[in-house]
Amino acid sequence: MAENVAQKLISSHLESGTMTPGNEIGVRIDQTLTQDATGTLVALELEALGLDRIRTDTSVQYVDHNLLQTDEKNPEDHMFLRSAAQRFGLWFSPAGNGVSHPVHQSRFGKPGATLIGSDSHTCAAGALGMLAIGVGGLEVAMAMAGDPLYIAAPQVMGVELTGELPPWVSAKDVILEMLRRHGVKGGAGKIIEYHGEGLRGLSAMDRHVIANMGAELGATATVFPADDAVREFLEASDRGEDFTRIVADEGAEYDLTDSIDLSALEPLIAAPSSPGNVRPVRECTDEEVFQVVIGSSANPGLRDFAVVSQILEGRQVHGQVSLDVNPTSREILADLIAGGWLTSLVGSGARIHQSGCMGCIGMGQAPAVGRNSLRTMPRNFPGRSGTDEDAVWLCSPETAAAAALTGRITDPRDLDMDYPQVRLPEKFSANRSMLVPPLPVEEAREVELVKGSNISSLPDFEPLPEDIDLEILLKVGDNVSTDEIMPAGSRVLPYRSNIPKISEFVYIQVDDTYATRAAAHDGGHAIVGGENYGQGSSREHAVIAPRYLGLRIVIAKSLARIHWQNLANFGVLALEFATEDDYETLSQGDVLEFRGLRDQLGAGETISAEAGGRSFEFRHTLSPRQIDMVLAGGRIAQRAQQEAERKS
Amino acid sequence: MAENVAQKLISSHLESGTMTPGNEIGVRIDQTLTQDATGTLVALELEALGLDRIRTDTSVQYVDHNLLQTDEKNPEDHMFLRSAAQRFGLWFSPAGNGVSHPVHQSRFGKPGATLIGSDSHTCAAGALGMLAIGVGGLEVAMAMAGDPLYIAAPQVMGVELTGELPPWVSAKDVILEMLRRHGVKGGAGKIIEYHGEGLRGLSAMDRHVIANMGAELGATATVFPADDAVREFLEASDRGEDFTRIVADEGAEYDLTDSIDLSALEPLIAAPSSPGNVRPVRECTDEEVFQVVIGSSANPGLRDFAVVSQILEGRQVHGQVSLDVNPTSREILADLIAGGWLTSLVGSGARIHQSGCMGCIGMGQAPAVGRNSLRTMPRNFPGRSGTDEDAVWLCSPETAAAAALTGRITDPRDLDMDYPQVRLPEKFSANRSMLVPPLPVEEAREVELVKGSNISSLPDFEPLPEDIDLEILLKVGDNVSTDEIMPAGSRVLPYRSNIPKISEFVYIQVDDTYATRAAAHDGGHAIVGGENYGQGSSREHAVIAPRYLGLRIVIAKSLARIHWQNLANFGVLALEFATEDDYETLSQGDVLEFRGLRDQLGAGETISAEAGGRSFEFRHTLSPRQIDMVLAGGRIAQRAQQEAERKS
Repeated sequence: MAENVAQKLISSHLESGTMTPGNEIGVRIDQTLTQDATGTLVALELEALGLDRIRTDTSVQYVDHNLLQTDEKNPEDHMFLRSAAQRFGLWFSPAGNGVSHPVHQSRFGKPGATLIGSDSHTCAAGALGMLAIGVGGLEVAMAMAGDPLYIAAPQVMGVELTGELPPWVSAKDVILEMLRRHGVKGGAGKIIEYHGEGLRGLSAMDRHVIANMGAELGATATVFPADDAVREFLEASDRGEDFTRIVADEGAEYDLTDSIDLSALEPLIAAPSSPGNVRPVRECTDEEVFQVVIGSSANPGLRDFAVVSQILEGRQVHGQVSLDVNPTSREILADLIAGGWLTSLVGSGARIHQSGCMGCIGMGQAPAVGRNSLRTMPRNFPGRSGTDEDAVWLCSPETAAAAALTGRITDPRDLDMDYPQVRLPEKFSANRSMLVPPLPVEEAREVELVKGSNISSLPDFEPLPEDIDLEILLKVGDNVSTDEIMPAGSRVLPYRSNIPKISEFVYIQVDDTYATRAAAHDGGHAIVGGENYGQGSSREHAVIAPRYLGLRIVIAKSLARIHWQNLANFGVLALEFATEDDYETLSQGDVLEFRGLRDQLGAGETISAEAGGRSFEFRHTLSPRQIDMVLAGGRIAQRAQQEAERKS
Repeated sequence: MAENVAQKLISSHLESGTMTPGNEIGVRIDQTLTQDATGTLVALELEALGLDRIRTDTSVQYVDHNLLQTDEKNPEDHMFLRSAAQRFGLWFSPAGNGVSHPVHQSRFGKPGATLIGSDSHTCAAGALGMLAIGVGGLEVAMAMAGDPLYIAAPQVMGVELTGELPPWVSAKDVILEMLRRHGVKGGAGKIIEYHGEGLRGLSAMDRHVIANMGAELGATATVFPADDAVREFLEASDRGEDFTRIVADEGAEYDLTDSIDLSALEPLIAAPSSPGNVRPVRECTDEEVFQVVIGSSANPGLRDFAVVSQILEGRQVHGQVSLDVNPTSREILADLIAGGWLTSLVGSGARIHQSGCMGCIGMGQAPAVGRNSLRTMPRNFPGRSGTDEDAVWLCSPETAAAAALTGRITDPRDLDMDYPQVRLPEKFSANRSMLVPPLPVEEAREVELVKGSNISSLPDFEPLPEDIDLEILLKVGDNVSTDEIMPAGSRVLPYRSNIPKISEFVYIQVDDTYATRAAAHDGGHAIVGGENYGQGSSREHAVIAPRYLGLRIVIAKSLARIHWQNLANFGVLALEFATEDDYETLSQGDVLEFRGLRDQLGAGETISAEAGGRSFEFRHTLSPRQIDMVLAGGRIAQRAQQEAERKS
């Protein structure tokens, strides 16, 4: 049968299950990536699993999220991650090397390979013809331990690109158009595969922009073919030997289809405070702008900085605007210098920051309350910038540069200049010397983990009980993101290795009494959510921390994929309403009485409970493997149990 | 009479008093500088004074200390400062332009002029043949309002430099040698004037290094002649027209003298945790190094970065070292790019940060606990780095670069290479377009101050009472710095515009119960200190915040100059022990009973009190002008009183 690219990638790695959408399949994993914000937990999980040496082809620990070092916690996390990488056999990319996704694409990405990462934007690597999926940290740890990745087999949505982007319109506008059409959950349960002659005008880094923000569509993955553009990218990155051509077979079909005429696109922008809140830039030009930030994994390519530099060249940033530039990586910075682009950025008034994620994850660069900040970043969830009442807009580098010049949201087509032609070098900088390779096994065994005082072990979680009464301690609405459940930002991120401490911040922007109430409440509790519960970042802290506070069951209208998997991984039962109206019926303070819960889970997809004398029905979509995990109290408890059974 | 440079500068600006050391003199002020950490208070003071337009020739508001923007407070401070600069007629240097002292030297410094700044390193401008003094913010505000600066007439200490620095030894080693000889209070009450043929080998930016850390000697000011090196610097900075030659008259004499044979110097380093703790580098080579930081006002010149770059060129930073580079300014960054130096820094593994003070003031770049951090910065007081149990060493760029390569403290003479010759460009970059000039008066009057929610007005302080009983709520030892009284760092600095909030952090590293006890204690309290109380940074928060908590009297063996002035400015009475042994006799918890205090202050230099039935005698060294201020409750209260008297 003629296969599309997604099917080729899955079928070449399929370890269990069949490709019927919704069925659980096991996929062999070749590569993993972790970053510092989620990686310290992954390292603690590897330790808890008693792993001696990772079994993946290539695993890389990046340090890119928290680089501020406002006290000793942050540098001590970095030292811990370095020691863990050396102990278990990972590559280590220290602070200053840059943002994981583009660095991974440049130095490690390989057409045809599978990659998972404890970062929701791991999907960016789909740009190279990889199957790349953002997952919870525990799944990355299990993959390093040799397990397949278990996911519900996705539908494949083929998006045909035709035509060519007009001047002042770039890759970011393509993914913003997808978000305009499909919204922040339009990709749920799907792999989005781009194809068609329109691909010819999109470089591998342009495709990275589109694949990266597939996460914002809620897609399981985004894939592009590995074609000439990918070959050119790998050759320019001094890695031509890693190229394999992977394109859809003639006559390949898709479960769903869509198409975009690139020549009809115009500059788009996502208004506060959702990536799905997309509008034409020309409709927003009455907005004043106070900050413009260029950088992040959503627009990481040399071109994305060079085009800003060329727009600004010889001009001055508007007086009220802080133009913050975060060079993606050490190598992009070197190429920006070599091409003369950095000089004109500096001259026109940009603040050049260290390479890394920075303001994208709320680590610095917070805007003033209510003052518009335009960013080339992927997300603008409320408060993610570090400012509670922020006003963050997402746009292309072209639109961002225009606002930097005028101090207002400006359609870049209205700038009185020709669209700059960016000439990229034939070869990109390739600096391998600051990537620390894995140690040989014998040496690695001698490495001791360097744990600062803020690095605490993982808490143990109990099995799910047969009978349990759970008060609903919190009820929230639709599209609650993991940024709201477990905020990042400079106040919270430093505690990513310290579950007891970080749990004090759970839901703090939504209901700052929740954490205290939950900690004081004996016997566990439940949370009720709306549609798309747990969208956004892959952080498993958004499960572990509330679980530490006593969360046992989440009931929502629907759940976002990664968060749903994370809940199971740590033994929290995720349920959906069988009757959506029951969402309205249940209130904060109601007590749900579950009886024979373990038996119910074993018996089928329906779980019933009573509250205030009324019966409620819920559904779960857990696989038998996941049910076992939840019953055991999570994957780590389950593994300990399996080890104990093996020994007895 | 033959005058030295210091005498020329003072006599040409003398408004009151005579040059007898110890006498209070009034000096006319031509220029002021403020930075963001102290500047928000200065702006509030200008507002409280009801000033319409500043009366100095040139006043500049810099934003360089807190650039992290971990939430909305920081960008809102920046907006407030911009609005205040525009309202009152200051220049404004926004975030990203760089560190105040070197930028001021490049763009505004003028031989023969007087400069005060609400930053203790303002003295750096002495490099150009200016009288430049770090003072409290209120004195800067009063100078902008047209008042002279009142100081005790200093002694002038002439330091003759002979010979030439050997390879691998640079200006930082000269000031470290001065600190080795004279310690952190050796400069108290003095202007240090360098002269002699050894000056020929020291550029204006080398002299900045030496003048800057005159603050660490406790000196009132440091002056260099305005000679050919200064002319060359101004010409290279595109400001040749601002040069005036100012050298000591033939036969000029000094109150005190010292001399340094430059050719006999070797690489020196200040060990944790005092700039006075100086040793030869070669005696410290068994120390492992985990972080190296290049930057700050103590080594800000293009040369200081270029030499590091040339030492590292083609080599790789040691694996365990984070090499953090803070380019001084937008212009230094541009010149580092143009000279190829930035490329080799990036290639060899440096993390390039935004231009500004950064880790020097504990805003980021904190080291791990107990892990050695080598810095080209001016201060290593305990905890100033942001890490409570830090281990910070101060050294030259050469010594810092050597450690970055080897991962140990290393005498750079032991590196197996020739001492790099740095060839500076004939002209430095000169970017004026990112300096915002003062608005015309009529426009300025229309500007409204933009106050974020974290910017609170100054509290009112009452007059000193006639009779008061003060419990000693805290007793501390020698050399307590303003960093210990009022910490900076990422947790505290964001509250610099909010006295009630920042007061919660007073003395937190020394005794974390003090602030709570003081706030709960009615009727005021006293603090007892040892020698050199209040050394270091000029921050007036170290007075205003404890005063807000009820501090009325400080009794110490001796007081550092700027802090002593700040105490008077805000109505806190600063006393010294008449009998030093009484320091031992008095304990925390003792209650000092002052009777007829206002009368005593008017009558002479001796103040008596009783505690536990025993009599104690203290001395003050306040001028009549200062006594009036203290009686009134501080300069702002005094001015309000004067205005009221004028009107009645």
